[in-house]
Order: sequence, then C-alpha cells, then structure tokens
Amino acid sequence: MTLSKQQLESGNEFAPRFNQDGLIAAIVTDAAGGGVLMFAYMNKEALRLTIETGEAHFWSRSRGKLWRKGETSGNVLTIREMRIDCDQDCIWLMADIRGEAAACHTGRQSCFYRRIEMGKEQNPGLSFVDE
Amino acid sequence: MTLSKQQLESGNEFAPRFNQDGLIAAIVTDAAGGGVLMFAYMNKEALRLTIETGEAHFWSRSRGKLWRKGETSGNVLTIREMRIDCDQDCIWLMADIRGEAAACHTGRQSCFYRRIEMGKEQNPGLSFVDE
Repeated sequence: MTLSKQQLESGNEFAPRFNQDGLIAAIVTDAAGGGVLMFAYMNKEALRLTIETGEAHFWSRSRGKLWRKGETSGNVLTIREMRIDCDQDCIWLMADIRGEAAACHTGRQSCFYRRIEMGKEQNPGLSFVDE
Repeated sequence: MTLSKQQLESGNEFAPRFNQDGLIAAIVTDAAGGGVLMFAYMNKEALRLTIETGEAHFWSRSRGKLWRKGETSGNVLTIREMRIDCDQDCIWLMADIRGEAAACHTGRQSCFYRRIEMGKEQNPGLSFVDE
C-alpha cells in the first residue's frame, strides 16, 4: 500500500522510501557530542538489522555487501536513538562511540575532518579541522 | 584529473564526487544546537552558490530545479561552516537558523521529528518527538 503524502509525513507508520538502487541515506551523529560522524547508505536488510540489534549496519556500495559497522575494526556504533525525516527517505542515527574509537576508516573519529573554505568564487581549498 | 584515493582522502584539494545523477548528499545541522535539521542533495551549481554566498542552495529532485533554501518561506539557512567527508561524496553544513524558523516544509524546525521504535522485529512504529 502506498501512503499519501499526508500519511507519509504526518502519520506514525514507518514507511522508509528506498531509492532506485534499493538504498536509503543514513546520517550518524555522536549522541554525546552531537557532531556528524559519518554518512552511509542502508538497504532494507541493513535497516532491519540496525533496528533489531541496536547496532549500525550499512550497505557498502564500493564492496557491494552488507556491512556491520565495526565488524573488522571493532568500532561498533551502538544506536541510542533513530529518527526518520518528513518524507521518509533519510535516517538519522544517534550513536554512542566508545572512547577514542573511530567512525572513519582513516582512523579519525569523524569522517568530516576537513573544512571547505567559504566565499571562494572558484577552487576553494580544504583545511584540516583540529580535533 | 582524477585524484588517487590517498589524495582524495588525505589532501587539501576540494574534489567533490557527484553521483550518476550529478548530485552530492548534504546534511544540515543547527550550528548552535547541533541537531540534524534536514538532508538534501546539491548539484554542482547549488554547491558553488552555497560556497560563494554562504546561504544554502540545493537541487530539488521532486521539482527538478535549483532551490535557494528559504526563497519562498524566508527561512534562509546561513552557513557558519562547511565540511566534506573522507571520500568527498557528502557535505556537512553547520547553519544558523533564526529564532523559530523552520528548516522543514511542514513548519517544524527539523525534518527529523519522528523516532523509529528500536528492537522491533517487524513493523516498528514512529513516535513524535517533543520539541
């Protein structure tokens, strides 16, 4: 059954909208600090497993496989709260990250470790954020 | 020129990666409160205008047009800081939102006004967040 725009946006029925590749966007923030840790995509199975287990699962587009975050690094993301946006095509995960644990594969806590220089008409550079 | 993975992730060259539709994901958080306000996509022009003007611009997939956030509602998002993630396929905007201004078209400050019930094996419901 397809929900109306009104039901989709104002109801309490969970009806995630996956894109043409079967994926939904997922933003992960640090439940304590509030900053954005990472951004990834989930397929239906990753979303189901995240809801059931309380640990973040994603779909790796580069590797073409389901991915339990931390399965190799040990840096599991435990979900404190999950939200969905108005038109149900994006998930927000508030996660607990342990101590010095990294959400980013580069070893940094957050994937967003570089700033874009604002106000540049062309070729803005990037500067590294002190963390 | 295509950057190596090393240059893309560890360099200070801005090289945003647009998807097959010419879009890049953009997360907007409240620079003061820290919560996620909205999620949208930018095309190259929207990204350029955001960097140049310091006000958020997006590409509306539903309307098929460039969209200066707040052009009809007046709820302009002024960018305090922009970051990009490790593999340069997602932008994080930290925005100033004025007073009671809404980032969501439903009139709410954030698009993420509903929680997903965790731990449910099937059909989790949504509950509205008190704000």
